[in-house]
Amino acid sequence: MSKIAAILTDWFEDSEHTGPAEAFEKAGHTVITVGPEAGRTVRGKKSATEVKIDRAVADVKHDEFDALLIPGGFSPDILRVDEKAVEFVRTFVDAGKPVFAICHAPQLLITADVLRGRTITGYTSIIQDIKNAGANFVDQEVVVDGNLVSSRNPGDLPEFIKACLKKLEG
Amino acid sequence: MSKIAAILTDWFEDSEHTGPAEAFEKAGHTVITVGPEAGRTVRGKKSATEVKIDRAVADVKHDEFDALLIPGGFSPDILRVDEKAVEFVRTFVDAGKPVFAICHAPQLLITADVLRGRTITGYTSIIQDIKNAGANFVDQEVVVDGNLVSSRNPGDLPEFIKACLKKLEG
Repeated sequence: MSKIAAILTDWFEDSEHTGPAEAFEKAGHTVITVGPEAGRTVRGKKSATEVKIDRAVADVKHDEFDALLIPGGFSPDILRVDEKAVEFVRTFVDAGKPVFAICHAPQLLITADVLRGRTITGYTSIIQDIKNAGANFVDQEVVVDGNLVSSRNPGDLPEFIKACLKKLEG
Repeated sequence: MSKIAAILTDWFEDSEHTGPAEAFEKAGHTVITVGPEAGRTVRGKKSATEVKIDRAVADVKHDEFDALLIPGGFSPDILRVDEKAVEFVRTFVDAGKPVFAICHAPQLLITADVLRGRTITGYTSIIQDIKNAGANFVDQEVVVDGNLVSSRNPGDLPEFIKACLKKLEG
């Protein structure tokens, strides 16, 4: 079973965290929330869903985890101001570990500069940013490029979760 | 005196609209708010400042105005999903009219693909997006490149407003 880091902060897209996190735990995996401050409760953008952050991003390393989930909403844009968060994300990609990115999540990958030559999808508003970052943007429910699994928005969650679970099975 | 379009929607950075808008009107200019829907009240991200939208972006053309103000916050990211908003912004730049962009405002300019070769500043989180869009990013309070005036965040408002007013004087 896998240990998955979910990196998020305030204004995350509620269902893009709760949907995958619940499905991962139901399948027997463990989800650890990572954010700017351990013990703080962050709130979702749509329904103000409360999530307690387990670990501060400054205190974690990718080698404690098997995979990374990046929910969307405005959370990725807030997180990418923090160099520690950007570095944490970059090390997952560099290590070739599974990274699950939905909606605005590619913003963190863009700031980490790890999208050159990769094939990915994401939220409509950031299509130009994804292309400018050197990635190949594809407009479909879920895109799997090696260990990078991406989707566009909450409507894609069923296919996104299915692809993430498959990747966790190896 | 100039007629200035301010393009914004929900989650705009309150002071980045109210500060410039009040200063422009105090100087004798007219500010017309433009957004997805005429008559709708939009709310700021920090203090829930209420602003009534005068004109729908689908019903306006740049030639009715002398300049464009783009406040930041999460508003530019929401607006750039609307092709009409992107087109409205693009026509201002193409016409060489003054464009005042602060904080996340360059996101609209990136989607409009009008930043190649331009010198600009913006909010920390979007630095990589600005560079990837082919622009020359400069980390300073206010940057003036032809008719494009830009600043980083609410702390830069005094210098931003000063530079915008100077540009409006011609």
